[in-house]
Amino acid sequence: MGFLTNMTATLKSIDGSGDIAAAMGEIGRRARAAAQVLALAPAEQKNRALQLMAAAIRAQVSSILAANADDVSEARAAGVAGAFLDRLALDQSRVEAIAHGIDVVRALKDPVGNVMESWTRPNGMRIERVRVPLGVIGIIYESRPNVTADAGVLCLKAGNAAILRGGSDSMRSSRAILAALSEGLRSAGLPEAAIQLVPTRDRAAVGLMLAGLDGNLDVIVPRGGKGLIEAVVSHARMPVIKHYDGICIMYVDKDADLGMAESLVVNAKCQRPGVCNAIETVLVHREIAPKFFATTGRTLLEKGVELRCDEGALQLAKQNGNSHSGQIAAAKQEDYRTEFLDLILAVRVVDDLDAAIDHTEAFGSHHSDGIVTSNADTAEKYLAEVDSATVYWNASTRFTDGGEFGFGAEIGISTDKLHARGPMGLEELTTYKYVIRGTGQVRS
Amino acid sequence: MGFLTNMTATLKSIDGSGDIAAAMGEIGRRARAAAQVLALAPAEQKNRALQLMAAAIRAQVSSILAANADDVSEARAAGVAGAFLDRLALDQSRVEAIAHGIDVVRALKDPVGNVMESWTRPNGMRIERVRVPLGVIGIIYESRPNVTADAGVLCLKAGNAAILRGGSDSMRSSRAILAALSEGLRSAGLPEAAIQLVPTRDRAAVGLMLAGLDGNLDVIVPRGGKGLIEAVVSHARMPVIKHYDGICIMYVDKDADLGMAESLVVNAKCQRPGVCNAIETVLVHREIAPKFFATTGRTLLEKGVELRCDEGALQLAKQNGNSHSGQIAAAKQEDYRTEFLDLILAVRVVDDLDAAIDHTEAFGSHHSDGIVTSNADTAEKYLAEVDSATVYWNASTRFTDGGEFGFGAEIGISTDKLHARGPMGLEELTTYKYVIRGTGQVRS
Repeated sequence: MGFLTNMTATLKSIDGSGDIAAAMGEIGRRARAAAQVLALAPAEQKNRALQLMAAAIRAQVSSILAANADDVSEARAAGVAGAFLDRLALDQSRVEAIAHGIDVVRALKDPVGNVMESWTRPNGMRIERVRVPLGVIGIIYESRPNVTADAGVLCLKAGNAAILRGGSDSMRSSRAILAALSEGLRSAGLPEAAIQLVPTRDRAAVGLMLAGLDGNLDVIVPRGGKGLIEAVVSHARMPVIKHYDGICIMYVDKDADLGMAESLVVNAKCQRPGVCNAIETVLVHREIAPKFFATTGRTLLEKGVELRCDEGALQLAKQNGNSHSGQIAAAKQEDYRTEFLDLILAVRVVDDLDAAIDHTEAFGSHHSDGIVTSNADTAEKYLAEVDSATVYWNASTRFTDGGEFGFGAEIGISTDKLHARGPMGLEELTTYKYVIRGTGQVRS
Repeated sequence: MGFLTNMTATLKSIDGSGDIAAAMGEIGRRARAAAQVLALAPAEQKNRALQLMAAAIRAQVSSILAANADDVSEARAAGVAGAFLDRLALDQSRVEAIAHGIDVVRALKDPVGNVMESWTRPNGMRIERVRVPLGVIGIIYESRPNVTADAGVLCLKAGNAAILRGGSDSMRSSRAILAALSEGLRSAGLPEAAIQLVPTRDRAAVGLMLAGLDGNLDVIVPRGGKGLIEAVVSHARMPVIKHYDGICIMYVDKDADLGMAESLVVNAKCQRPGVCNAIETVLVHREIAPKFFATTGRTLLEKGVELRCDEGALQLAKQNGNSHSGQIAAAKQEDYRTEFLDLILAVRVVDDLDAAIDHTEAFGSHHSDGIVTSNADTAEKYLAEVDSATVYWNASTRFTDGGEFGFGAEIGISTDKLHARGPMGLEELTTYKYVIRGTGQVRS
């Protein structure tokens, strides 16, 4: 499972010396030089590169699949597990999906150069706030070859250079994909160093990235499990944009339409339980709880969901789930703080809206939370008071996603409050600068 | 000089136990509870509090001045130096300036609740991106009593709770100012914990803030010297918005109007040399250098500015500065990387615009840099290529300031690229959340 193992311990032993340090230093310098070119590259030139990249991915599908087959057999020989292998493995349609993703990014509006605001001061100075790229972005991710293309092209479109460090197990696949991306850059007259892949499996390279590559890395985006993200956060010398837990909570209010509640809870829990925007807890208003368990409760049990219930919910669940008693258990306190990523749902009966909001603030991860109610006043109070990146009224939390928001693509979903919050698209890969045009103004 | 001394060493020895830990934990919990109230407080209520605060500051001027006199005499007795004492000392007009600052913040538009963008998805879901407060903001600053009011009221207006840790030498003054702020909060029906002052001089409190107060501190803003900021950055467990160096550079192009160049260079260097947006280096195009030294060069010397010159500039400076030879020296490489904060200016003659841009990118701190030229093409190339928070064409760099930008007030000037860049006003003390209103949409 690559570089995650003992990363923290390894980082402590890095002294930054030797060949890897020299190679990583050179990667940083080349990235900075490329970023200076990209910051000024017109949208047409970046789009031309993206078009050529997609074409090269499609043309080189057999070499990409051959490289991937080598990665997969090595991983299999090392005894790697199912879900990991599934994320690593490519086939014809997954390679086409990578190429299509590049087409989608090409069609997005270029954020760079956009004048966000402008005004004239009383002394005649004209001030513009203009969107500019962040510079050099480092992405550290697990063995998912498609991220090599997704992250690389999003950074490029927003005018940034990318330094990619994928999981060791996908090294050959990533290199094959990078070859296609490099061809597109070269043919469009852009520097190949716009998208670079860390060329070694040695974990020392990650430590050198986190140390900043002599100031040539402006931000790090870790993508992966909690262990990876915590290790990056505690060692990074530059800003990190990250995604921690997705403990998402749905509240079924006393004024909920029961049919809608069932549809939303089932979708948010069962449609894809292993992702961050699936719900882990449902809160049910005491007045509607008996009807809820007779309908949605039964359906969840029939769909194989295990219910971990507080005292108020336990009896109701049992009454309605005779034939599924093995799926009903008393909840422990930690169940309300757990990202199950599985067909398990913590359940709690609450007295009122305030109790639901208090629970959500105390136990949730402020990612995506929702209310089901037909009462607009209740909904607006919930939407105002729940301090999460995304709050829903009568819709599934599963929509927290750059694609579903209409951003076209995403680099991830931020659970941070600063710089970017929620799904991150192209704009979130930029910053701004103030451009001031005067006629000789001095300060008195 | 208070808590800066050996802060790093002290932080390492903190074990977080004892009374201070309990007191700081309680401050964090009270701040979080206050932040939840403030996030929902209408603009009218916050403005009413600000009005009452300003009135209380004016009414309590004598107790504030008495507290400040005690701080000043203790500092004087401890042998504290001139500039430090000047920042610490208050008088009638400085207290009035504090009250006026509160009036200014009251008049600013409330950013909270502003719908930044909104759109409807094809499935009918309505998405809004809404401005919300950051939460609880910690400010760590030196012994400047006015910051207690400035930072506290800016945080309040943007809906945030503030935990203020001022320099130990200003403790009594800050407490007297806080008493007036608390009175305003109380009378307006807002929680007093909206603005809290760390009640101890013990540096362990700073360590506890940087450790996050059990997750009750969302962001830290350090204001002060480089030592303070570096210590905060290396120990903080939460995001830091900060200001490092202000190594600002002005480039006098071959097509500059010489009169304007003189006016801008003299203003940017001499009007207030001790601040971050004063210039530290001037770059002069080779073709205009002889005339520049005969005019601006002379004037700078007459104003007492010491010129540290590269080879190309040294001869010209000497030719035009016979009577000031003691102020002319050969520059060392590190002079171009130094924030003098004094009447010292590094000078370099450059061959062309590209050399000026390269120098600015390599040696500047990306804070505020400017070009003087009458050639619009040259100017636009410079404005596009220099990657600084603020770039000027034909205006003094001294305008980089929230007040001068029209923000009304500022919490500081960020040299970071993420979250906030350049002068930070109320908007930069907020984040956003996505509010989604549906009619039962599920993801398929």
